[in-house]
Amino acid sequence: MPTVSMRGRAPRPVSRIVQSRQNARVKELRSGFARAGVTDEGHIAIEGEHLVGEAIASGLLLAAVFVETGKESLLDRLDLPDSVDVLALPPDIFASAVPTEAPQGIAALVSPPTFTLDQVLAAKAAALVVVSAGLQDPGNLGTLIRSAEAFGATGFVLLPGTVSLFNQKTLRASAGSAFRLPCVAAKAEELFAALPARTITALAAVATEGEPIARYDLTQPSALILGNEGNGIPKEVLALIEKRVTIPTPGPVESLNAAVAGSILLYEAARQRGLR
Amino acid sequence: MPTVSMRGRAPRPVSRIVQSRQNARVKELRSGFARAGVTDEGHIAIEGEHLVGEAIASGLLLAAVFVETGKESLLDRLDLPDSVDVLALPPDIFASAVPTEAPQGIAALVSPPTFTLDQVLAAKAAALVVVSAGLQDPGNLGTLIRSAEAFGATGFVLLPGTVSLFNQKTLRASAGSAFRLPCVAAKAEELFAALPARTITALAAVATEGEPIARYDLTQPSALILGNEGNGIPKEVLALIEKRVTIPTPGPVESLNAAVAGSILLYEAARQRGLR
Repeated sequence: MPTVSMRGRAPRPVSRIVQSRQNARVKELRSGFARAGVTDEGHIAIEGEHLVGEAIASGLLLAAVFVETGKESLLDRLDLPDSVDVLALPPDIFASAVPTEAPQGIAALVSPPTFTLDQVLAAKAAALVVVSAGLQDPGNLGTLIRSAEAFGATGFVLLPGTVSLFNQKTLRASAGSAFRLPCVAAKAEELFAALPARTITALAAVATEGEPIARYDLTQPSALILGNEGNGIPKEVLALIEKRVTIPTPGPVESLNAAVAGSILLYEAARQRGLR
Repeated sequence: MPTVSMRGRAPRPVSRIVQSRQNARVKELRSGFARAGVTDEGHIAIEGEHLVGEAIASGLLLAAVFVETGKESLLDRLDLPDSVDVLALPPDIFASAVPTEAPQGIAALVSPPTFTLDQVLAAKAAALVVVSAGLQDPGNLGTLIRSAEAFGATGFVLLPGTVSLFNQKTLRASAGSAFRLPCVAAKAEELFAALPARTITALAAVATEGEPIARYDLTQPSALILGNEGNGIPKEVLALIEKRVTIPTPGPVESLNAAVAGSILLYEAARQRGLR
């Protein structure tokens, strides 16, 4: 049985070496990356030491860990539960399953946290929900989720047209926040039908002519709706939202980066809530 | 002489068709992209309709415009000065000079605005200078420059270790702000020696244990120092800065994205200044 170098604790044994690209777990890993979503078996695929480490630190259940043969020492740097299935893959089989051109040599299938819309909108104190109405850049989406967790957002909703939460770039930019913050995909009609019962006010973030955010009372239960990088909030979604807010910008710039704009709204909400 | 389709005004004629990869202008274009900096002739290379359009809208002087043969209609969508030299390049020569794998078919050599450190620190009212102490992601640097212009920053300083201002990704993420906001590369010693004479206070943005930014008076002349994505502000730079500020984050996140953190500091400065 291959073993790995000691680092103060028992080396992590590899459960088995996979010799076929058609191995069921390898096929599931490949499929998870290809769809950037949940596999038929209910897992998501993640790659790289940092993301696998974040998944473990966030308490996610690992269905399987994959390591490239020759790089087994990577296992040592992770706090793997004893029960996890560890598969060693020869470099060509590993490369066939992961999307990265220069893979680090470690990947995993994990059970993502799942939430209902109702759970995402629930909050002990005043709700602070972030809604992506079509963010398409995974770096922006992940960065916004990171900011959402940092500023105490209570949930995150992905409306149709938004890039996948489980895109590797989204997950990486979120620095693990996507594994912890309650997130859910929902249709606009569902979301806007559910907000009144929870007395959550929907606020459309618009580049101009909304109420200046520092003057709006963000200590109330709020859902911050952020639009697409190029086109803002889709018309049919905007039509469902009564209130518009704007970040005043004295300079001659048309708009801010979408993740930056959302993060500033979150900062302003946290600032106001901290003053209470 | 090749012409382009009419769009309400006279079609833009191509000055000449280049048949050699060794043409001096083509070599300069290639060199500009390769170094992501100023060429020996004093120009920077930019690619794509959006960036060329931003350069024109920002009043930059165009040394030459390059269009791929067959895509001359792109010229029509740009407000090109009559005097500009327009070179048509066959697809293989165009591709040999630009870094993008699927180029749009338009590129240019332009004279970037140049500023001295003294000019960048000068301000009519209270200075608001942003300092990058080692941002390495061009998307982050460009996004931060975009926010800096939006929130009325008076200048931007790039300390050693920062990715190039003229990297194509930096320029694109800045949405043209890098063509307009006074920016300069400088050494830390130069910068910190120059601040006292202008009564500008240097503020190190740190993830924890700085003064909460909403409590610090950002209406005073300030230089906001932002560190590297992974490692923060280099120790030797931090040693030169007396004051530390922090963005309070109630959530369990180690840090914010670097461009987001800088943008929030800028928002907070603009918010306080707007209250005066």
